[in-house]
Amino acid sequence: MKKAVVLYSGGLDSTTCMAIARNQGFEPYALSFAYGQRHSVELDKARDYAPLIGARDHMVVDIDLRKMGGSALTADIEVPKDGSSEDDIPITYVPARNTIFLSFALGWAEVLGSSDIYIGVNALDYSGYPDCRPEFIESFQAMANLATRAGVEGNIPYRIHAPLIDLTKAQIIQQGVALGVDYRLTHSCYDPDSAGRSCGSCDSCLLRLKGFLEAGLIDPVDYIS
Amino acid sequence: MKKAVVLYSGGLDSTTCMAIARNQGFEPYALSFAYGQRHSVELDKARDYAPLIGARDHMVVDIDLRKMGGSALTADIEVPKDGSSEDDIPITYVPARNTIFLSFALGWAEVLGSSDIYIGVNALDYSGYPDCRPEFIESFQAMANLATRAGVEGNIPYRIHAPLIDLTKAQIIQQGVALGVDYRLTHSCYDPDSAGRSCGSCDSCLLRLKGFLEAGLIDPVDYIS
Repeated sequence: MKKAVVLYSGGLDSTTCMAIARNQGFEPYALSFAYGQRHSVELDKARDYAPLIGARDHMVVDIDLRKMGGSALTADIEVPKDGSSEDDIPITYVPARNTIFLSFALGWAEVLGSSDIYIGVNALDYSGYPDCRPEFIESFQAMANLATRAGVEGNIPYRIHAPLIDLTKAQIIQQGVALGVDYRLTHSCYDPDSAGRSCGSCDSCLLRLKGFLEAGLIDPVDYIS
Repeated sequence: MKKAVVLYSGGLDSTTCMAIARNQGFEPYALSFAYGQRHSVELDKARDYAPLIGARDHMVVDIDLRKMGGSALTADIEVPKDGSSEDDIPITYVPARNTIFLSFALGWAEVLGSSDIYIGVNALDYSGYPDCRPEFIESFQAMANLATRAGVEGNIPYRIHAPLIDLTKAQIIQQGVALGVDYRLTHSCYDPDSAGRSCGSCDSCLLRLKGFLEAGLIDPVDYIS
């Protein structure tokens, strides 16, 4: 089986993305980041879930985005609740995050001898985050093929797969269910309680709940209220 | 003064690069990485030297490239001595390293409100390392302008400056001397002793010594032999 590096947060999108990579014939190597998340519960769940959802290996890279600041997800800025973030680019945007994540994925892919990287960005994200747009993904792929041995030695070129990019949250959930994804083994909340229950009111929870509602399904994870 | 993020290892090239950024009217923000270097002396020296060579601020980002492996600089592979590395791409090549470094520089630049990034790659590097070639730098710049707010909101586009890219080591040293760089405040060796003295025989020392020789100058750092 060919290897693919799959960027994996433990959330709904990246878990669905891993199921798609498997369905497309790849052996997934899950890559997560410890980057000063507000709650380590996100990472703990990703560690628990990765083998259960079929990752061949799971690497967690420690990077320190807190020093850099500039986002509600890594600095001491309040996470917006109940859809109160009104800027074009959400305050939860982390500068250059997907560029940094894909760069590590590229390095690991090169070491593994893999030429395929999966990232679970989607239409809902790219309405707000610049580094989730299709033109960014294409541009990163072009750069990746100049950055590596493949660009010098003429190996198989890298492909950055973004299979969710045109899908709504509801369509992602429907596709995941069709591939047998158990969404209890996912975590989306930016601001969970100490027991790991989702807040139900951060942007990420609101998008997730709306997705399940529109898909006509019940979200199996636990919510505080 | 405009801000520029300067990738800074404490070595000869990046120190010269910082002097050039200052000479071009920028206030340099030095960015270094703790990435499982074989000897922390390199990073200790970078910390000591950064303020002395005019950095306005110095950020050291911890990243863990050791888990990834694949290079003599981050894994348990012997550093080649006396020019014995004969592959087209040296074993000291770290997969996707400059892509990863520039990605962090991009994130910090975005937080600082800077649109200029300096990287000290040069002609000697790009004969061996794929991510030191001019076409890689241009491609990264194109990607950067799609990855960030600048790409969405039409801010000043990012420029990736590689002012050493066409220079030999001797030319870099001559340019640095003309700008007043004190090369005692630089460190290049891949394999120094516990006192921080350079080995004089790793690829990096050999290139450096050859550069000083060709520039008709004496290297002021201490060597073991």
